Amino acid sequence: MKSNKLIILSRDADLYLELIRQAKLPGLTIETGRNLNQGRSHLGACDIIFGTPALVQQALPHAPRLKWVQSMWAGVTPLMEADLRQDYILTGVKGVFGPVMAEYVICHLLMHERRSLDRFQNQLKRQWDKTPPGTLQGKRIGIMGLGSIGLAIAGAARFFGMHTRGYSRSRSRCEEIDQCFLPGQLVAFVQGLDYLVCVLPDTPETRGLIDATVLGAMAETAVIINVGRGNVVDEPALVHALERGDIAGAVLDVFHEEPLPLAHPLWVTPNTIITSHTAAVSFPELIAPIFIDNYHRFVTEKSLNHRIDFNQGY
Amino acid sequence: MKSNKLIILSRDADLYLELIRQAKLPGLTIETGRNLNQGRSHLGACDIIFGTPALVQQALPHAPRLKWVQSMWAGVTPLMEADLRQDYILTGVKGVFGPVMAEYVICHLLMHERRSLDRFQNQLKRQWDKTPPGTLQGKRIGIMGLGSIGLAIAGAARFFGMHTRGYSRSRSRCEEIDQCFLPGQLVAFVQGLDYLVCVLPDTPETRGLIDATVLGAMAETAVIINVGRGNVVDEPALVHALERGDIAGAVLDVFHEEPLPLAHPLWVTPNTIITSHTAAVSFPELIAPIFIDNYHRFVTEKSLNHRIDFNQGY
Repeated sequence: MKSNKLIILSRDADLYLELIRQAKLPGLTIETGRNLNQGRSHLGACDIIFGTPALVQQALPHAPRLKWVQSMWAGVTPLMEADLRQDYILTGVKGVFGPVMAEYVICHLLMHERRSLDRFQNQLKRQWDKTPPGTLQGKRIGIMGLGSIGLAIAGAARFFGMHTRGYSRSRSRCEEIDQCFLPGQLVAFVQGLDYLVCVLPDTPETRGLIDATVLGAMAETAVIINVGRGNVVDEPALVHALERGDIAGAVLDVFHEEPLPLAHPLWVTPNTIITSHTAAVSFPELIAPIFIDNYHRFVTEKSLNHRIDFNQGY
Repeated sequence: MKSNKLIILSRDADLYLELIRQAKLPGLTIETGRNLNQGRSHLGACDIIFGTPALVQQALPHAPRLKWVQSMWAGVTPLMEADLRQDYILTGVKGVFGPVMAEYVICHLLMHERRSLDRFQNQLKRQWDKTPPGTLQGKRIGIMGLGSIGLAIAGAARFFGMHTRGYSRSRSRCEEIDQCFLPGQLVAFVQGLDYLVCVLPDTPETRGLIDATVLGAMAETAVIINVGRGNVVDEPALVHALERGDIAGAVLDVFHEEPLPLAHPLWVTPNTIITSHTAAVSFPELIAPIFIDNYHRFVTEKSLNHRIDFNQGY
């Protein structure tokens, strides 16, 4: 069998190495680098890189024999720049973040229903807090963005007996969603929701989409959760709505500026939870199997999963 | 059509009244009492009581025409006392608490994986906390007690990609459970678990079942969740295990003594969450439909759902 030389480029290289070694892949020698300096001496001989896009970008000029790059992240923007080589197969990561994002969203929905943070603060005061919790059953969730992540969230919401609404650029029907809304119907979409979850990407059409008008149309009991991109939300309008009690809460993973500046009003806005862009991390335990599966395809000359088109960028 | 007289006996009587009125039940006049004094004048004429077991117990001597009691709670112990009349049909509440308990358990599993309380405390210090979260996918949950509640929890755990183990008096196979354990196999059952969830009732066999030996067999990373009965756990042994770091955490809804006494060490035991017996409240929105369905059966002389046998007590 032909021998292949892999380099793992990631701060978590040791963890990925262990996971890949367990798979006992045939005909593979493996090197690792936690950064480019550590990896550079091995790049000349390697045909495969499994790494984070930013590290792979730096490695590209030093890997003349490169045939295939498996990205560890869903976002591969660093490898799309016009002056970079595109003479290799690039494969991405799909289907992994949906379940992880669903865990994030369900976690915060349940924490809100069960008043977990209030209860925890009362526990610190040794208060036997009998305030009754709520339930997700019968509540209404609206999901902005109906790609694989939005649909995974919808599926989990359905599991807990919620009614689902969806908002997207183009989907007017969708199995996981009870009621679909299109651009122009945004105010109707948010009216009467218990939870508004945004997983929209940052595009010219989505920027500032959740503004004072949308927030004003929401119920006073509603909670907004943004795990998409910070730019989709008009942050001053959101702070204002939370301070006035126009909505009941916000769970924010993404912001216009990250890390959120120390002086930013959102740190002290009432009923706001800040999760510091940790909603969807790349768990090596979930990403390594994608490489392993693709390696089996690579050595048997099958087409690789999640191949990225350099022209489309995804 | 024959006319029936219902009295609703509950602190939430008004809410139940509204929910039942919406169902426009045929041939039914409805009175309410938030306590026995409020309800007493109507009891003489009523044939049906829909109420909490403790209030119904007080009402029994004053309702000579009583034919049917629909309990609002699963536990009907107050109506089982030997000197009380048993000349009426008693129906209980089943199938409602499974999904609610599953919400409680999944909430706390996800909060642990996502380090929600640590993250919240860091937010109060304006710290951009990038500590990566964990995921439920691939984690192992062991459920003690495989009635409808235990199985609802198992189903939710499966939904999130967890491996499920079950421990019960008699079930050696079960669809929702990957691996079943029986009495005598308790140590093997807890070994290697990420989460141990107890929904066992209080019986002579379960009392003190989770003791120092069981806790000592658990992984240091494991978290125990007790939503069954407080007596099942040896509390001093649990405090000791948590203080030594033999296990990673405890989420406790039930205790030997409730409310948990102010001086109890569990209030200040590390990595302990106390939820003050709020895991499974009776949500009127979920309980009212059981009465409504049974009322339709009552007027058409069908057998009622969830009928309780006074000899067995359930």
